[in-house]
Amino acid sequence: MTEIDVQDLVAGAREGRPRAVARLISLVEGASPRLREVMAALAPHTGHAYVVGLTGSPGVGKSTSTSALVTAYRRAGKRVGVLAVDPSSPFSGGALLGDRIRMGEHAGDPGVFIRSMATRGHLGGLAWAAPQAVRVLDAAGCDVILVETVGVGQSEVEIAAQADTAVVLLAPGMGDGIQAAKAGILEIGDVFVVNKADRDGADATVRELNHMLGLGEARKPGDWRPSVVKTVAARGEGVEDVVAALDKHRAWMEERGELNARRTRRAAREVETIAVTALRERIADLRGDRRLTALAERIVAGGLDPYAAADELIEGVTGP
Amino acid sequence: MTEIDVQDLVAGAREGRPRAVARLISLVEGASPRLREVMAALAPHTGHAYVVGLTGSPGVGKSTSTSALVTAYRRAGKRVGVLAVDPSSPFSGGALLGDRIRMGEHAGDPGVFIRSMATRGHLGGLAWAAPQAVRVLDAAGCDVILVETVGVGQSEVEIAAQADTAVVLLAPGMGDGIQAAKAGILEIGDVFVVNKADRDGADATVRELNHMLGLGEARKPGDWRPSVVKTVAARGEGVEDVVAALDKHRAWMEERGELNARRTRRAAREVETIAVTALRERIADLRGDRRLTALAERIVAGGLDPYAAADELIEGVTGP
Repeated sequence: MTEIDVQDLVAGAREGRPRAVARLISLVEGASPRLREVMAALAPHTGHAYVVGLTGSPGVGKSTSTSALVTAYRRAGKRVGVLAVDPSSPFSGGALLGDRIRMGEHAGDPGVFIRSMATRGHLGGLAWAAPQAVRVLDAAGCDVILVETVGVGQSEVEIAAQADTAVVLLAPGMGDGIQAAKAGILEIGDVFVVNKADRDGADATVRELNHMLGLGEARKPGDWRPSVVKTVAARGEGVEDVVAALDKHRAWMEERGELNARRTRRAAREVETIAVTALRERIADLRGDRRLTALAERIVAGGLDPYAAADELIEGVTGP
Repeated sequence: MTEIDVQDLVAGAREGRPRAVARLISLVEGASPRLREVMAALAPHTGHAYVVGLTGSPGVGKSTSTSALVTAYRRAGKRVGVLAVDPSSPFSGGALLGDRIRMGEHAGDPGVFIRSMATRGHLGGLAWAAPQAVRVLDAAGCDVILVETVGVGQSEVEIAAQADTAVVLLAPGMGDGIQAAKAGILEIGDVFVVNKADRDGADATVRELNHMLGLGEARKPGDWRPSVVKTVAARGEGVEDVVAALDKHRAWMEERGELNARRTRRAAREVETIAVTALRERIADLRGDRRLTALAERIVAGGLDPYAAADELIEGVTGP
């Protein structure tokens, strides 16, 4: 792939061509050597999209909820991107047949991009790759990007926390409240959705949730009080309430400069992760290298201590 | 502490003063800001000691075996250092009463240094602190340093593998063979000791061990074939055989230049670990720093991509 191809792809993505978007995400996901070039070309076209993270235990109806949100946003004339992230799956690139079927109603819609992403073997983990894929969808002109994660592990929580607004999905009678608390999900949720609210126990789950949110660390006056919304996503019920809750959270953040502050904190963490990973790789690349061996030999001979050697090594990997 | 103090301590340690040795190890263990200075001052006086790592499951008689080895080496006129490392213990600095009691017979011997080390909270973990403490004992004129680790976890295996010769202790009828194989101990053992050999099943354990060693990856001609020795350490039985096996392994390594090669590989890994940790810390120190925030703000504004930002950050932490 030549320099021109990346520029072409970015131009194609900005025109909303699904193939260009898909290829760019593949480059990001595969940690292509051209990744830096891709990200540099995308940067000027990012910052427009509102990023919503959705997480929750298996069975709460994440895909159905995501699909219902897409419908709601499309009705409002928004361009929508969906990134379905599965940290445990070896499949990616839209290979998740289940998602495709559930998202099938949006398949022919040129205003919707849907992409599945897996993590296995990804350099630095998915928590690092997902924001780059979000930038692709952002540059492609999406107004809203829904990042859906499967499961409630640490990675999922991290990915959802990278969003502008984090939505935590629960369902009645699954003991989700307690599980969620364990995974640190109560801390990251800006909006809580109790889906399958036509089932027994929906009100009890809402009560439990409100109780646990109240038990959380004391909020300062002016802090965001997470919304709790009931839905039956499969019938589209309550989905407009979710959109309203998201709009409210976004407006609340924008009023206070919190949206920008949150994005800045997120970018800072991202840069830190990339820098540490890059440096660790540069040093690992020196394994078996003559310079490292020479330093080690001097240590063994008593002519150098390991800290001074590490300084020399660092100079070697960070010089011009 | 002034510059002169470190030099004084090192001079004191070289004269074999226990207090100077103890204070230097405390500086190492506590990751003192003067650590670099300490290591630089020690370096010219290291490389003399033969380092033996001892590991094995709880109950195999590690402390008793270590103590018996100290006795044997003292009888041969050697100066001996003992470093008892417990990766899970919050205690250190010789605070392990049990060890003190078991090692009690050597308490008044000026030719023996005994030190317990714990890891909790140590920067970079014990696998990093232990070799520095070994250098202190080395500079203090020890001919042999016994590094005893408690347990058979990954850290213990790493610490034992940092030795010139790794001794793996087992006892009859504890199913140790299988457990050891799981923890990767069979791969690191240069000498295997079946202690408590007066108990039922000792010969079966030796057979199982020989069988498992035989099943290991095919050795190249000339590779070291691990020794298997039976002991009853509590009565001193077989301990001279262990010393003989250690001597044999050491001679074997020296003949082939393998001792130096092993120490060089070990020093290279150590330098790598120190360098990566130092760089990670330098970057973490920038959390909340104006430079990192400024980079993050440019990313959010679309004026910079996170990879280019990471490059700038790296330049910032590695410059002169």
